[in-house]
Amino acid sequence: MINPKINAGRLWQSLMEIARHGATPKGGVCRLTLTDEDRQARDLFVKWLTEAGCSVAVDRMGNIFGRRVGRNNSHPPVMTGSHIDSQPTGGKFDGIYGVMAGLEVIRTLNDYHIETEFPIEVAAWTNEEGSRFAPCMIGSGVFIGLFSLEEGHACRDVNGITLGEELTRIGYNGDRAETGFQVDSYFEAHIEQGPLLEDENITIGVLTGALGQRWFDVSLTGCESHAGPTPMHLRKDALLGASRIVNEVNRIGLAHQPHACSTVGFMRVYPNSRNVIPGKVDFSVDFRHCEVEQLGAMEQELRTALASISDEIGLEYHITPIADFAPVYFSDICIDAVRRNAQALGYSHRDIISGAGHDAMYINRIAPTGMIFVPCENGISHNEIENAKPSDLAAGCNVLFGAMLERAIKQK
Amino acid sequence: MINPKINAGRLWQSLMEIARHGATPKGGVCRLTLTDEDRQARDLFVKWLTEAGCSVAVDRMGNIFGRRVGRNNSHPPVMTGSHIDSQPTGGKFDGIYGVMAGLEVIRTLNDYHIETEFPIEVAAWTNEEGSRFAPCMIGSGVFIGLFSLEEGHACRDVNGITLGEELTRIGYNGDRAETGFQVDSYFEAHIEQGPLLEDENITIGVLTGALGQRWFDVSLTGCESHAGPTPMHLRKDALLGASRIVNEVNRIGLAHQPHACSTVGFMRVYPNSRNVIPGKVDFSVDFRHCEVEQLGAMEQELRTALASISDEIGLEYHITPIADFAPVYFSDICIDAVRRNAQALGYSHRDIISGAGHDAMYINRIAPTGMIFVPCENGISHNEIENAKPSDLAAGCNVLFGAMLERAIKQK
Repeated sequence: MINPKINAGRLWQSLMEIARHGATPKGGVCRLTLTDEDRQARDLFVKWLTEAGCSVAVDRMGNIFGRRVGRNNSHPPVMTGSHIDSQPTGGKFDGIYGVMAGLEVIRTLNDYHIETEFPIEVAAWTNEEGSRFAPCMIGSGVFIGLFSLEEGHACRDVNGITLGEELTRIGYNGDRAETGFQVDSYFEAHIEQGPLLEDENITIGVLTGALGQRWFDVSLTGCESHAGPTPMHLRKDALLGASRIVNEVNRIGLAHQPHACSTVGFMRVYPNSRNVIPGKVDFSVDFRHCEVEQLGAMEQELRTALASISDEIGLEYHITPIADFAPVYFSDICIDAVRRNAQALGYSHRDIISGAGHDAMYINRIAPTGMIFVPCENGISHNEIENAKPSDLAAGCNVLFGAMLERAIKQK
Repeated sequence: MINPKINAGRLWQSLMEIARHGATPKGGVCRLTLTDEDRQARDLFVKWLTEAGCSVAVDRMGNIFGRRVGRNNSHPPVMTGSHIDSQPTGGKFDGIYGVMAGLEVIRTLNDYHIETEFPIEVAAWTNEEGSRFAPCMIGSGVFIGLFSLEEGHACRDVNGITLGEELTRIGYNGDRAETGFQVDSYFEAHIEQGPLLEDENITIGVLTGALGQRWFDVSLTGCESHAGPTPMHLRKDALLGASRIVNEVNRIGLAHQPHACSTVGFMRVYPNSRNVIPGKVDFSVDFRHCEVEQLGAMEQELRTALASISDEIGLEYHITPIADFAPVYFSDICIDAVRRNAQALGYSHRDIISGAGHDAMYINRIAPTGMIFVPCENGISHNEIENAKPSDLAAGCNVLFGAMLERAIKQK
């Protein structure tokens, strides 16, 4: 039998077509969770699944599952997937590549009339990014039973609208139970979102795990007053405090190399008027590291800085943990399957640790899981100029196809 | 003849009644320029002027003038006034006190059937605060010919709506010419917006002048990318740069004591998502000093810091001067009139320099001008908890009444 290969042109075409939903003038995508743009892309994905002969189920968290039956459908599915939602100024590949690659696997199985032993499923998980609703990855988090359905539905965006309300509004509050399913194994293809593969001219990243993450919301409160007649020494300037913390967060990241990342990505100033001393500032802190002890040390340094800087300027502070993901180690079964297929297909490859969170980190808790990275241009992601080569995207999809097929057919 | 006094209860009542327009739950006022709340307060002011027998004119900048005729109406008016607009989280006294005090002067002249030699006018100037439209004090600025009508109408808010459009929308695009009027003299009553009078238990501040001001808009551009897989040393984090500038602005203010103030009151982060490294940050800088040489040195230090911090982090920067007000020295004629009347009425008083900008600083360029400060609670202003004592507000209004009457009657 000829070695089956995915259709690279069809994969690229699907990526370009679905990128129209939420397309931005700069060539990126703004497809925030459960907006009309997200709904349009979901509708297209469901249409394509149906055309590929899949049965489609939507669960009560809005997660979408396209299923291609096998011979033994009482066995849990070999699963792949990723997410359709994007950052506010996101790109055409982050998340949606894994969903379209899963669809392409199913289309290719159809092309070659391959009957698998076990069913194959491709999933689109709700709210992976966490841009509109915190925490991120809430769709897969509910699926594995880490959060309740009620917690998922209660997430609010900055305007106070809940995730549950928006699911209903766009027609994706499905009727399938949100949890309790078995999964044979899970593979997720994704762009690297970092510069490593491109720098080393390597096509396939074989994921062995991911950095742990700790996210916080911080609020500093001082006293707003007139910028003219309030002398410097009598001020309680919340933005001055926040600025010193931003600097400190950066210092903490630099102090815990290698592997540490630290970021303040969000900040809101009140009342945000040029001639009023800011009375309140809210901001986020994002720490990442592959060692949980280092994450703990980073958090402690942040708390110490918050206390001393707030005291120095006369501010009150409040810190709320928003997410805490332990470092992740994937299943050897899946790591080996990815590495073996990359090798068999003749692609250059290397082991790699993910700096970003992915739904795969959650699914890893209930089933053997692995991931496949492909390079992206200049390592840039979460940006409208995010880009990837059609040949690399096809290579990643071929590895995914091989790993899933091996798992769905060859088992004893 | 008995010494006429203003009606303290009526003044307080008017302040409380007009504060309903834009009232906030915390007891303050949000009455941004040319919003519906501003229109409602303007309508009430016009109604009260009319009821007090004044003729009302609105110019093409939306400035409102209530005129009480004298015997010699070919002579320029003795004028007072201030502004109706507020900060987003402003108080019940900033600006509106000067307008209501002017109305109370006219009502008191009516009570005592006093005929003045020269006409009396009370003005409400458009967009003093500069919160919604920059630059601040554009209404009085156009009145004195510093800006053209076109420049005034072209000011845009953050949503891109122009001041001219909003004037038309709320019905305050008047038909009186916007400039070319003579003013005999101008007095403005205002809360201090600083802690000095209250600290020294003094009722009346006799203004001798005001700090000069330089305002800037600054924009820093880096590269937005994913907070996880982008290593610290490859980042171009615009918020890290902005935070260092905020610290530097604070340092510059402290380095130019006494009298220097420096503030970053506004900041906006793009794309403002917790797991994206900020690609762009816009913020304001506000410098104040009573010596123009010191203002120049402060600006130069800011520009030096911008260049070196941007270079260090790999950012591009852009700095735009938004306003440049030279230090102001009021007219001895008006300073003496204020001091003499405070003295004659038996109020404690002291000379004082304003840290804030006021429309009086512009009117000072075309007519003898003076100002009267009264204490405000804890020196707090531009804040919903802004407060002042009825007795202090009445004292300031009595000094205003005395100074204006002296000027409108006693001249040779």
